[in-house]
Amino acid sequence: MISDNSSNIPQQIQPKDSPSQPKRSFTFVKTQAEVPLTIAVKAVDETGEVIDKHVACERPLTVYLNWRPIVTLMTLGAKPESLALGYLKNQGFISDVSQLESVIVDWGVNSAAVLTREQTADIDKKLSEKTVTSGCGQGTVYGSFMQDLEDIQLPRPSLKQSTLYSLLKNINEYNDTYKNAGAVHGCGVCEADQILAFVEDVGRHNAVDTLAGDMWLAQDRGDNKIFYTTGRLTSEMVIKVAKMGIPVLLSRSGVTQMGLELAQNLGITIIARAKGRHFLVYHGSENLEFDVNTSPSK
Amino acid sequence: MISDNSSNIPQQIQPKDSPSQPKRSFTFVKTQAEVPLTIAVKAVDETGEVIDKHVACERPLTVYLNWRPIVTLMTLGAKPESLALGYLKNQGFISDVSQLESVIVDWGVNSAAVLTREQTADIDKKLSEKTVTSGCGQGTVYGSFMQDLEDIQLPRPSLKQSTLYSLLKNINEYNDTYKNAGAVHGCGVCEADQILAFVEDVGRHNAVDTLAGDMWLAQDRGDNKIFYTTGRLTSEMVIKVAKMGIPVLLSRSGVTQMGLELAQNLGITIIARAKGRHFLVYHGSENLEFDVNTSPSK
Repeated sequence: MISDNSSNIPQQIQPKDSPSQPKRSFTFVKTQAEVPLTIAVKAVDETGEVIDKHVACERPLTVYLNWRPIVTLMTLGAKPESLALGYLKNQGFISDVSQLESVIVDWGVNSAAVLTREQTADIDKKLSEKTVTSGCGQGTVYGSFMQDLEDIQLPRPSLKQSTLYSLLKNINEYNDTYKNAGAVHGCGVCEADQILAFVEDVGRHNAVDTLAGDMWLAQDRGDNKIFYTTGRLTSEMVIKVAKMGIPVLLSRSGVTQMGLELAQNLGITIIARAKGRHFLVYHGSENLEFDVNTSPSK
Repeated sequence: MISDNSSNIPQQIQPKDSPSQPKRSFTFVKTQAEVPLTIAVKAVDETGEVIDKHVACERPLTVYLNWRPIVTLMTLGAKPESLALGYLKNQGFISDVSQLESVIVDWGVNSAAVLTREQTADIDKKLSEKTVTSGCGQGTVYGSFMQDLEDIQLPRPSLKQSTLYSLLKNINEYNDTYKNAGAVHGCGVCEADQILAFVEDVGRHNAVDTLAGDMWLAQDRGDNKIFYTTGRLTSEMVIKVAKMGIPVLLSRSGVTQMGLELAQNLGITIIARAKGRHFLVYHGSENLEFDVNTSPSK
């Protein structure tokens, strides 16, 4: 564990106005420098040769809301403050960004403590509503997670195949931890062929929540964005992206039946198996302009 | 949803004696025929051509223990009864197999109701102990999950590289849903180069729990087994395999730092990145006999 406290200076982050509240400052304190994302290890390959490899770090982060422990996430630890905020937002513990007082991340005790200006909705009630778990294992989802989906109105996107290829090419520049150590999923918020933000984590849902936390804090709209993930498009993944207001979901992996049905109901364009020149549009192909001459696939 | 009730006949499963209890019968009732694991969909590929594809099914399964809802798992649904039992066993809700009275799976209401002969340990207390979540997303793990690890004594395995290659070759015969639809993880319990059981699920932890449930019901020991998974070896994965008493973990994916540390402490041989002829032994290479002449890897 790194104990260098050089970055132990409160950082003022100014969230944009939320409709209901005047602008207020938000304090983010991190009581340690960045934690390492990979560590060097020795491995023996099939020839019996000892070689130097890296493995992705995995560490617990307990998220507290107004001193109440909510959940412990196993995470790579790249952006703990955004992960904590995105998790609480996606699970419906906090809805109004202007209510945020501070988040204090302390890797010494693996905690992210979030404080709000006024008490949030009954935390006990929320915790008791826990029912559904994610397609990628057994992730906790609180009752409110599935609510408000019918309120979501996503714009109809317009996308060019050439832009898609350009984006996929640009994404290859990311995935640093994956290239170095593997065992992580990567997610990115993109606009046209540009990657606005990219996060890797040992848990793909952590990566989504981290980006959701960033967008929420910046009050960014997802209208013109594309959400990229290396992970599978299960129900929970599609719902989280819909809550970010992003109408296009791009994955190098596949989609499940429930993920697809949700995308159809929510109007999310689903482009899966996107690797190199290949992709499969499972929903919303009318939103994609096929402006690249490709030879028929096998 | 299939409503054919042709398999609506109680099946008597005879769990082996557990040390503490006499042999008793266990009833498993399934109120529907098998549910489909994939469904046919249309997709548009990069040439603009509409093609027929299959996607993996994903459905909720709410696990009840003595009429108390415990968790809802998003699952492919291949072996709901084993999944429910394995989940309850791995999370410490039931420890003695002879306590099992019945499990009733009803896909009409997506439930798996498990009954025990006597009341189990305080369920409320257990549910309140929930703290840690999985490396693959945000899986719920109950307090007791991390307990008893120090009691685990795993035998030192002896494995040949030639057997490993033979096993990897045999595993290629499985992964049916993956080959058909993708978006699932596969796990197998193996002995030498033979696959004794193989399960696929949209959640990799569901696949592990399903196999754990089968082994628990049959009171199989893991001593001479190898656990194979297509998924990443995160902390929770390693712990679950240790609880199955299996000393070798084989994955086509990578390992995280915490997964590796746990394997080192528990004495689990970790063979990751196993694909074709390639693999990397991250721990326990002294247990592997390199009896195949391979050319040095790049």
